[in-house]
Amino acid sequence: MHANEMAEEFPVVSVEADAWDAVTQLAERRLPGLVVTDSGGKPLSILPASQVVRILVPTYVQDDPSLAGVLSESMADRVADKLRGKKVGALIPEDVPELAVVNDDDTLVEVAAVMARLRCPLAAVTRGDELVGVITASRLLQLALAPPA
Amino acid sequence: MHANEMAEEFPVVSVEADAWDAVTQLAERRLPGLVVTDSGGKPLSILPASQVVRILVPTYVQDDPSLAGVLSESMADRVADKLRGKKVGALIPEDVPELAVVNDDDTLVEVAAVMARLRCPLAAVTRGDELVGVITASRLLQLALAPPA
Repeated sequence: MHANEMAEEFPVVSVEADAWDAVTQLAERRLPGLVVTDSGGKPLSILPASQVVRILVPTYVQDDPSLAGVLSESMADRVADKLRGKKVGALIPEDVPELAVVNDDDTLVEVAAVMARLRCPLAAVTRGDELVGVITASRLLQLALAPPA
Repeated sequence: MHANEMAEEFPVVSVEADAWDAVTQLAERRLPGLVVTDSGGKPLSILPASQVVRILVPTYVQDDPSLAGVLSESMADRVADKLRGKKVGALIPEDVPELAVVNDDDTLVEVAAVMARLRCPLAAVTRGDELVGVITASRLLQLALAPPA
């Protein structure tokens, strides 16, 4: 079995897309993250929901959650303030884990090896520079345990 | 709104549980991870699907995925070999991120602060030592953007 047969559709967003729209999609569809591509559609990175949560909470409150009460505005207002007019690219942290990218003819073990090395919960499957789909770690485990006949 | 109103059910497994059973559950239900508790039910850690993938691939193949072909056994056999007779506790890496644990009367901002500080994609909600439920980062964003009336 090759990567193109394992890949599934996954929500993808461009670095140039509106940050508010992307976060709304994460929230409404209850997604753990989005795959971020460059403006040409080449996969670049992941925007995890946990990263967006970090953006919303000031550092001094992260360090001492008992200070949360000093934030007088609502979380909805904070989301709007922090995201308005920004692009998705501005939300991606510098220390984000490298996105695992595999070729559409890679085998299951090759995909597992790349995901394992990068400690990445998903791999983007590409043909040339084009994104074909995504393989999550749990999808890979499912196929490893019960390969289709 | 307090944490107990935000919390949802989430798959939980004890450190003493059988590793094979836990990984089968991850795979069959396509879960990104499980919350791991001590034998008394107190939340301890997370077992991410990506961590299980790491266990299945030898280090020398992680370092050079082109060596994947030298693995003569199937992935299903590798899964069985690596997990047979082990407990869930043996799968949790030493460098796993700390699990965010919040109290059932914490506010949304307090939960966000703890998740943000620990860079954790979910928070375990406890009353005393008892696990009440789990709040994922995307659930938190959903509630932050559209608080229930």
